[in-house]
Amino acid sequence: MCELLGLSANMPADIRFTFSGLRQRGGNTGIHKDGWGISLYEGRASRSFHDPKASFSSEVAHFFHTSAIKSKMIISHIRQANRGRVCLENTHPFSRELWGCDWVFAHNGQLKNIKKKSLKFYRPRGTTDSEYAFCYMMDKIRKKYPKRPKKEKELWSYIEKLANEVNQLGIFNFLLCDSRHMYAYCSNKMCWVTRKYPFGEARLIDTGDIIDFSNHLSKNDVITLVASHALTENEQWHCMEKGEFKVFNNGKPRRLAA
Amino acid sequence: MCELLGLSANMPADIRFTFSGLRQRGGNTGIHKDGWGISLYEGRASRSFHDPKASFSSEVAHFFHTSAIKSKMIISHIRQANRGRVCLENTHPFSRELWGCDWVFAHNGQLKNIKKKSLKFYRPRGTTDSEYAFCYMMDKIRKKYPKRPKKEKELWSYIEKLANEVNQLGIFNFLLCDSRHMYAYCSNKMCWVTRKYPFGEARLIDTGDIIDFSNHLSKNDVITLVASHALTENEQWHCMEKGEFKVFNNGKPRRLAA
Repeated sequence: MCELLGLSANMPADIRFTFSGLRQRGGNTGIHKDGWGISLYEGRASRSFHDPKASFSSEVAHFFHTSAIKSKMIISHIRQANRGRVCLENTHPFSRELWGCDWVFAHNGQLKNIKKKSLKFYRPRGTTDSEYAFCYMMDKIRKKYPKRPKKEKELWSYIEKLANEVNQLGIFNFLLCDSRHMYAYCSNKMCWVTRKYPFGEARLIDTGDIIDFSNHLSKNDVITLVASHALTENEQWHCMEKGEFKVFNNGKPRRLAA
Repeated sequence: MCELLGLSANMPADIRFTFSGLRQRGGNTGIHKDGWGISLYEGRASRSFHDPKASFSSEVAHFFHTSAIKSKMIISHIRQANRGRVCLENTHPFSRELWGCDWVFAHNGQLKNIKKKSLKFYRPRGTTDSEYAFCYMMDKIRKKYPKRPKKEKELWSYIEKLANEVNQLGIFNFLLCDSRHMYAYCSNKMCWVTRKYPFGEARLIDTGDIIDFSNHLSKNDVITLVASHALTENEQWHCMEKGEFKVFNNGKPRRLAA
């Protein structure tokens, strides 16, 4: 299986403290050593850092940890290969362009027979069930909405519908970004935490490192992290329910349609 | 304007020596300081490093220079902004997926009225004439060839035809990769050099650094570099002619159809 970490914030945010916990699970405190990646948005574009090597020892991960790259929307993934060999083609997050925006996707789980679904526009480069499922969802969204719908909740509902459909094939925990919103779907495990004023301390489960966010964040900053498993032990992570779909932007969960 | 650098090799090759010359031109020996990027293939996928900052001082470029990432096919670009502001969305190389392969593109020049051409499948994320021209060519290739043509020279001829068409709108020096071949088009400046046994020394024009490739390469290694301007001063760079189109793979120029 794999682990996911996403960030939504109302200002370009530094994910390195929390990411340093996730990174340990790629070969040190965890077995997800078959590659890792992180995608960070700036406007409608994202840039990604990918490495088919274990995040714990990856030179690209080491560089990222020493860099100062911030973003309002981030998706990261560490991989334990099930379907598809260990190679760049199979390294999450995956991305495709729709409506002149980068869409970015990362998945935890396994899907049976997803490859029996036909694809039209988007094709996987690699052999994972994950990238295939992403292409399937993108195909469907593209077909239904040749242009971005004006009512964004219409799009959210459609993505939720697709998520529920694909989830019938197995385990489908995922994070998806369309450059405006981050979508999280919980098949069987996903949790989230919001950091906002007044800020306190957080302690990473995997390293024991402690940070006092009041020294790093401003009063108006709001950041939400979404992860497969809690990464800190003294913050209030909310567990999502099975089949639950959430939408985040500007650091906050958005209210879905009734 | 901008500068381009491409590599085709018959083994995963290290571009860092030559890239370190190009990098100087992004803010030190040259004025192309409005961002840079490099895309490196592994199979059908590519990974890119992008930074909207000057390559000479970019931390991402510094990391790349210290890393050991090799590839058989590489495209790099340093930007001097003409059309479109300095931001990630406008930073080359651009990439899109077709036939389950990453296609990567970088451009030097300016194109008038390219945005009057209609687009169907692919849309630009940013505002450059370059990304628009890339989307236009990808649209045309996709429409003509829903599947990769079995006769690869058919595809080459079609790309050359599109290049000649777009070149009517201004200056259109470009490098394009489809994961199998690298295509180079010379609108008004482009040159290339092949490094093969017996290997000699090369001296970078921009730094004076010297390398003796016989200490780094094996007898069977073949590498071709394509660039806007020669990067070394004691190698035989071949100038392409105006309107010339070339195809490279496994380190060598390929023979085009008569």
